Amino acid sequence: MIGVFDSGYGGLTILKDFLKELPEYDYMYLGDNARAPYGNRSMETLIGFGEQAVEYLFDQGCTLIIVACNTASSTVLRHLQEKYLRSQKVTDRKILGVIKPLAEAAAKQTKNLNIGVVGTNSTINSKAYEIELNHLNPKIKVFSQACPLLVPLIEEHWHKKPETRMILKKYLRNLKGSNLDTLILGCTHYPFLYKEFTKIMGKKVQVLKPGEIVAKSLKDYLQRHPEIETRLTRTGKHIFLTTDNPEKFKKLGSEFLEQPIKNIQKCNLA
Amino acid sequence: MIGVFDSGYGGLTILKDFLKELPEYDYMYLGDNARAPYGNRSMETLIGFGEQAVEYLFDQGCTLIIVACNTASSTVLRHLQEKYLRSQKVTDRKILGVIKPLAEAAAKQTKNLNIGVVGTNSTINSKAYEIELNHLNPKIKVFSQACPLLVPLIEEHWHKKPETRMILKKYLRNLKGSNLDTLILGCTHYPFLYKEFTKIMGKKVQVLKPGEIVAKSLKDYLQRHPEIETRLTRTGKHIFLTTDNPEKFKKLGSEFLEQPIKNIQKCNLA
Repeated sequence: MIGVFDSGYGGLTILKDFLKELPEYDYMYLGDNARAPYGNRSMETLIGFGEQAVEYLFDQGCTLIIVACNTASSTVLRHLQEKYLRSQKVTDRKILGVIKPLAEAAAKQTKNLNIGVVGTNSTINSKAYEIELNHLNPKIKVFSQACPLLVPLIEEHWHKKPETRMILKKYLRNLKGSNLDTLILGCTHYPFLYKEFTKIMGKKVQVLKPGEIVAKSLKDYLQRHPEIETRLTRTGKHIFLTTDNPEKFKKLGSEFLEQPIKNIQKCNLA
Repeated sequence: MIGVFDSGYGGLTILKDFLKELPEYDYMYLGDNARAPYGNRSMETLIGFGEQAVEYLFDQGCTLIIVACNTASSTVLRHLQEKYLRSQKVTDRKILGVIKPLAEAAAKQTKNLNIGVVGTNSTINSKAYEIELNHLNPKIKVFSQACPLLVPLIEEHWHKKPETRMILKKYLRNLKGSNLDTLILGCTHYPFLYKEFTKIMGKKVQVLKPGEIVAKSLKDYLQRHPEIETRLTRTGKHIFLTTDNPEKFKKLGSEFLEQPIKNIQKCNLA
């Protein structure tokens, strides 16, 4: 079973593309809605939350975990990989994030080597994308912008309203003047504003689609790693877990997944 | 010691007035920043968080706890009072909230019996103010409006920007047409927008100041309850606890308290 972990609903925009690209596998989605959003939490707090989630998903039988949340991927992924895999020399389980595939796609895409990144405060402050992009190509210049209000605006269904467009324009003002040709949406909520991002950034900037990229990258990974792939179950199971109210998750979650969520249960991480 | 519990920073706007009105007592402030904001959480989740906070503050030696958070006051206060006091016949400790004093002040203030309430989704959905106001006077008409974006806008320092004023205007559109003469700010963050609320609502509407009202009500309460008052310590202690990063709390918290926060420690509730 593939575990997909997110602070809340955002990771469903990634799972949506997994279901399209890799429909044969079983999935368990875990949204830590009782403690979302993660975007402004400290490192120490995020480590605690991440450990609880990963332990829970391994206990439930997941052999591969995707940390779909950019905030968690950019802050605690390495710690989780170290603690649960490397230090114990575990080779038949994996924990993957979303930063690396998105950075790789951006590095491949850019021609002028100017790449923009937008995300939560924690993601931007972590410099995770910057580090990953410069690891791929030290000549790449990275221009980052935290957009902390976008998650609440999207979750409150304000993303089609003019106030959101005005706030987004202000957030993107510096990036617009940076001669970018590629923009990474470093938060799983932001694809809801995909059109607005492309309009504001203009035709010269390619805005990457996170779900498609991460799904294709996972497909590649599984082809290259039969030792992981052959351990994944394929019985058509899609299990959804939330740490807050399941009925609420069903409603808003179905919008993020773009299909009705049925099998939803409450789980307790703390 | 008086314990003041809030989901995050908001309760500091209440504590600020406690320190003015009742400076002689010791205070312990607990902000559950690692799991804030509470405004959209389910009842079950809020009960768990509230129990952990109250147990912690009692353990630390608080004999009186003020649940300064409107969301927690309006959803789980009764449960906490029942579980930790009434069911155990405890009479020398107390847990008080902010709904009752604010409702009493509004009921005293109103002439035309039309009262407005603004707050988080959870506070408004709980109908706590409506119930309290109608308990005081069944003829009072209550007009409620959830304003869930105001907390993130204030915490991101956008409260002086035109986008926030536009969003607030949209939120208040229905209330403006309801012939109110009194408005309750049912969220401890909203006093940051006090001027904007008064401007938009117009001269006929009295916007109540939550901190002042809750502090005066606590002063009255202590005068009427010497069995609680005499147990409160008076050594000048002001202790601040947060479940997330203390350095971050110090910075933003000092703005909410309008004075520098010094004695700040991390605590673990979960």
